[in-house]
Amino acid sequence: MKTAVYRKTHFNSAHRLHNPQLSAEENERIFGKCNRPNYHGHNYELIVKVTGEIDPISGYVIDMKVLADLIKEHVEEKFDHRNLNLDTEEFKNLNPTAENIARVIYDILRSKIDIKFDLGIRLYETERNFVDFPA
Amino acid sequence: MKTAVYRKTHFNSAHRLHNPQLSAEENERIFGKCNRPNYHGHNYELIVKVTGEIDPISGYVIDMKVLADLIKEHVEEKFDHRNLNLDTEEFKNLNPTAENIARVIYDILRSKIDIKFDLGIRLYETERNFVDFPA
Amino acid sequence: MKTAVYRKTHFNSAHRLHNPQLSAEENERIFGKCNRPNYHGHNYELIVKVTGEIDPISGYVIDMKVLADLIKEHVEEKFDHRNLNLDTEEFKNLNPTAENIARVIYDILRSKIDIKFDLGIRLYETERNFVDFPA
Amino acid sequence: MKTAVYRKTHFNSAHRLHNPQLSAEENERIFGKCNRPNYHGHNYELIVKVTGEIDPISGYVIDMKVLADLIKEHVEEKFDHRNLNLDTEEFKNLNPTAENIARVIYDILRSKIDIKFDLGIRLYETERNFVDFPA
Amino acid sequence: MKTAVYRKTHFNSAHRLHNPQLSAEENERIFGKCNRPNYHGHNYELIVKVTGEIDPISGYVIDMKVLADLIKEHVEEKFDHRNLNLDTEEFKNLNPTAENIARVIYDILRSKIDIKFDLGIRLYETERNFVDFPA
Amino acid sequence: MKTAVYRKTHFNSAHRLHNPQLSAEENERIFGKCNRPNYHGHNYELIVKVTGEIDPISGYVIDMKVLADLIKEHVEEKFDHRNLNLDTEEFKNLNPTAENIARVIYDILRSKIDIKFDLGIRLYETERNFVDFPA
Repeated sequence: MKTAVYRKTHFNSAHRLHNPQLSAEENERIFGKCNRPNYHGHNYELIVKVTGEIDPISGYVIDMKVLADLIKEHVEEKFDHRNLNLDTEEFKNLNPTAENIARVIYDILRSKIDIKFDLGIRLYETERNFVDFPA
Repeated sequence: MKTAVYRKTHFNSAHRLHNPQLSAEENERIFGKCNRPNYHGHNYELIVKVTGEIDPISGYVIDMKVLADLIKEHVEEKFDHRNLNLDTEEFKNLNPTAENIARVIYDILRSKIDIKFDLGIRLYETERNFVDFPA
Repeated sequence: MKTAVYRKTHFNSAHRLHNPQLSAEENERIFGKCNRPNYHGHNYELIVKVTGEIDPISGYVIDMKVLADLIKEHVEEKFDHRNLNLDTEEFKNLNPTAENIARVIYDILRSKIDIKFDLGIRLYETERNFVDFPA
Repeated sequence: MKTAVYRKTHFNSAHRLHNPQLSAEENERIFGKCNRPNYHGHNYELIVKVTGEIDPISGYVIDMKVLADLIKEHVEEKFDHRNLNLDTEEFKNLNPTAENIARVIYDILRSKIDIKFDLGIRLYETERNFVDFPA
Repeated sequence: MKTAVYRKTHFNSAHRLHNPQLSAEENERIFGKCNRPNYHGHNYELIVKVTGEIDPISGYVIDMKVLADLIKEHVEEKFDHRNLNLDTEEFKNLNPTAENIARVIYDILRSKIDIKFDLGIRLYETERNFVDFPA
Repeated sequence: MKTAVYRKTHFNSAHRLHNPQLSAEENERIFGKCNRPNYHGHNYELIVKVTGEIDPISGYVIDMKVLADLIKEHVEEKFDHRNLNLDTEEFKNLNPTAENIARVIYDILRSKIDIKFDLGIRLYETERNFVDFPA
């Protein structure tokens, strides 16, 4: 049986939900106040889950400091105190819903973490709304 | 791979654990202070999990406002500021344990949410005792 | 300068807000769904604050175990898994609002704790609604 | 002795810290990443404290529903899912630090709440940084 | 479909991460400040998950009081207010990482809980670092 | 009216409550399991409160980054991942109760923060036991 380890961190970003392929009315209907033009923002809380075998020498699945540094360098530096729509390549053409942000973070970290580990992303947009990728 | 989205909400209810098929002594032995005749109560916290594909137009698995409204109409209106044993059809003949409340909420919401989505219920009776249905 | 120490605990109770001196309409108008006849309930969280000098021998303001036992014996045993309106002397003729519950707990504990200490009560009815007595 | 009641709510906003009277270098030195031009955002948590006497008829200091509606109408509607710098009159010429946001909310609510009550504002910008006005 | 029930509890322990088979330099490199010789400590939060069928008589998967007593007797009494490295048999020759503590707790409780139930352990070392066994 | 700003941080330490002027029996009676010889530990949460006027140029009471750096350098570096009894000068001859730790942190920070600001320390030993100095 494998063990999962989790690292919780956070970043604070502005965003706006908007699909340029839709009309203004459709955007307003689907996204409501999240579509307002001048952005709003969130304290995103991110939990990264790494699943694998416990290393018998260290007693670790993965070194949490290494994992924390990876998240800091590749996720926090990119998204923290940024406007997701304006300041990031990832959301230039992708609507920054919580679902899509989680998927983007998964793709970023998947390429940095040994494939022998399973990876999971939980992202809290607020304490009332959150997502897992993969489910 | 699918994505899971979660919506957290709450309701405040009175209840009492009691099985009329058991003797008073058995009820007291099994349910302890939860069996006291005049009810006690909880701030129930409910997390509804919906699993599916991300819609490419909206970037949503499901519109969280639609989900929140479903929960409000069919769960909160029914249970919030109610006595589960006395005021609800569901627990007239079913002991309102956290397990049974979660299962009842699952049944209520399962019939309202498109079958293409998987559904999961987490119910916190207190921050120390909580349940998932299905596991 | 004095030091304050805090002990957090909890109890789960049913209650109903109702003033028998008011008409049914007035009760419904003032208390809304909190006035429903069959009770609802809460996970009350209680924080007891005791302020005094640090004892130079123990390094304590007050022994937290002694304080915890006092709260358990005189507050939790009385209110936990009870119906405040039906099962307690204190709320037979007093509306069990959060304000009044805090004041009652203050009176109970004030008589048990050395007068050299200042006493304060914080009571969370929910995480969104809470009170302090005294302010 | 008086009683204090507290109502917790929240709003999600974008903002940027910037003082146009300062040079770009000074803005960058003082506000760091909070000065980035395209905004970032927060899940602000707001706790409004109202202090007064318990009304003997209702058992309330103030009707929490009335207080919650005031906060919703005059604070949440104004700031939630907005850009504080661009979308609000209050921060057109005032730097939206947590300190200033708390003071602005105090001024808004002070004019709506009977002067017989004392008023206090706690604002969490994040769970690590928060302010009280007045102290 | 089965139901999972969860019981949350806690214990406060000192520990040090150290593998005597490694050199002092390797221990320092792998474990950093967690390797300091005089120990540090944590408020461990433990969530025990038990999965099974709801008993039609009680409405319980398992009696939470029985589960809580098992955890208290076999886990809390052993680890709470102890030095994991010095005071416990389990970590005399096993590095007390969160991963290993979770696995040890699993083994302890697995032998006490009917095999018809699935068992899972979540252990929070801090709110930022936590593990599940099995994953 | 002044404004208070708060910065929350944490450190993880081992400690033991013991007064060498008392007999072993008295130590055991007063401190119970906190007196066990091989130490236990906590995730201490520290909230530092600074009260003053809002600076009209920055909109800050105090620069939170400066405050956070002060806490990191003078408190966290000293206590985090340490044994308070063995590794610190402050508790060589002072019993490391939460009360005394808060007072020591107050003294450390008071000498580093401009006297025009009022200073307050809140220290959580656990979420159930915490202290304020000054009260």
